[in-house]
Amino acid sequence: MNRVLEDVIHRHAANTDRITAENTLGYVVSDNTTGNVAATSFDNTSAQGIVKHMNGILVGIVQSAVRDLDPTNKLCYLRVQTRKFEYLVAPEELFTITVLQ
Amino acid sequence: MNRVLEDVIHRHAANTDRITAENTLGYVVSDNTTGNVAATSFDNTSAQGIVKHMNGILVGIVQSAVRDLDPTNKLCYLRVQTRKFEYLVAPEELFTITVLQ
Repeated sequence: MNRVLEDVIHRHAANTDRITAENTLGYVVSDNTTGNVAATSFDNTSAQGIVKHMNGILVGIVQSAVRDLDPTNKLCYLRVQTRKFEYLVAPEELFTITVLQ
Repeated sequence: MNRVLEDVIHRHAANTDRITAENTLGYVVSDNTTGNVAATSFDNTSAQGIVKHMNGILVGIVQSAVRDLDPTNKLCYLRVQTRKFEYLVAPEELFTITVLQ
């Protein structure tokens, strides 16, 4: 796992715990360069599924769609509301955070 | 264009006008079976671009991702926030509504 990312996650651990204790079902942070799970509250299988589908495939495709429609535009945030829960996907430069609520 | 869809759009025309007059940049309604633009406030080229990318490719892929993660789950609503504006995509059975705000 990325050294910088590890630091960021560690620095915000208290905040993460406070937020996730309330209304969320869980979260996954993934490293963008390697595609690995950096931190999560889920078991490994679920986390890797979410990273693969949401952080990996989906963010890339949505980013392409946004750029195709307007080349000067950029994806900031993605919300996928489903019948059971909502995926909140925040793609950053080095990492991608996905929260389920 | 689908007859049912035409009726629905016509029936809600007053509402649509009221809502779009306030905070939105525009909207596109597309027919799911044919993929054509059914109603829009954009010019034809922009509308078709949005329908192709958002209503067509994206909704299908997001739907697949959601189902892959949980086969009993279903996509209800998609929000794509970009630097310039936000796409709100509501996929229904017969039609898909995309609003830009």
